[in-house]
Amino acid sequence: MPPLTTPKSGDALFASVDRVNAELFTLTYGAIVRQLLTDLEEVEEVNKQLDQMGYNIGTRLVDEFLAKSNVSGCVDFKETADTIAKLGFKMFLGVTATVTNWDAEGTTCSFVLEDNPLVDFVELPDTCQGLQYCNVLSGVIRGALEMVSMKTEVTWVRDMLRGDDAYEMRVKLTKQVPEEYPYKDDD
Amino acid sequence: MPPLTTPKSGDALFASVDRVNAELFTLTYGAIVRQLLTDLEEVEEVNKQLDQMGYNIGTRLVDEFLAKSNVSGCVDFKETADTIAKLGFKMFLGVTATVTNWDAEGTTCSFVLEDNPLVDFVELPDTCQGLQYCNVLSGVIRGALEMVSMKTEVTWVRDMLRGDDAYEMRVKLTKQVPEEYPYKDDD
Repeated sequence: MPPLTTPKSGDALFASVDRVNAELFTLTYGAIVRQLLTDLEEVEEVNKQLDQMGYNIGTRLVDEFLAKSNVSGCVDFKETADTIAKLGFKMFLGVTATVTNWDAEGTTCSFVLEDNPLVDFVELPDTCQGLQYCNVLSGVIRGALEMVSMKTEVTWVRDMLRGDDAYEMRVKLTKQVPEEYPYKDDD
Repeated sequence: MPPLTTPKSGDALFASVDRVNAELFTLTYGAIVRQLLTDLEEVEEVNKQLDQMGYNIGTRLVDEFLAKSNVSGCVDFKETADTIAKLGFKMFLGVTATVTNWDAEGTTCSFVLEDNPLVDFVELPDTCQGLQYCNVLSGVIRGALEMVSMKTEVTWVRDMLRGDDAYEMRVKLTKQVPEEYPYKDDD
């Protein structure tokens, strides 16, 4: 049976949610990173905290996404990845990602971002070269996917703050438990 | 001579800037507060840090505000307060504030917010009753005003998280140095 509602387009979805100024968000996120760098001695520890913060945020954002997007469940990881790239990124950050570099099994892919509101005005000082500045984003993806029963590992493989030509995060599906999918109440 | 450009309306201004999802911003800000509560032992110290964080953000946001709003300078503190309430809040948070409770000298007023995207889904646990959750906002106002040569003290006098019926911040102008106004280059 086809779904009763059609998923919204990314643009319609983004237009339908409350929004705040992107620069305010960028500066607020920058303030977190600076605070963590001050409080924690190791850059590696900051990376972990940013990822955990993103994970916590992702477990919350997935509810708003499912409530507003009319997406009622994806048939497989490929469809899930496309949905995140076209609708998820658009709904929350106002940009879209490209899904690429699939492995043969269809369990690992990359999200490539050319526009990333998180890093406007950011330059990493030499002392922070190990910093994974955007770890909050990979944490959000990991947290959101876990809430729809997909365990993943998410790592950054390209980062414009480190001189790469784009932002690329690699998402590897490590475990999927379809029967625990928690959003079937309305079917 | 009248200004060559007319200030934009709040709605036009908000539509003209890049935006991100308000819930993402709210959760990100919540993550900062939680992090500070974990890292610092005293709630009073958290309040100070949030205020300082806001101050740093405000000193940056004022540039975007002046660049995009076509506001070319306010004649006095009253006009400045109205501009912040109608255009500043709208441009960055998507809401407007009411300016009220002026003192006789015209140097102290209140901004009242009925809608405050910062606090969606927030409840203060009993252990955090002294927390000034929105101190980042008062810090932003203080920082932004200092960049246009107005030294202020900004304090919260009503807070819905503490059971009040609105958010009210009191802004007291303590010193004004008009000749240092740094945005006259284009006149």
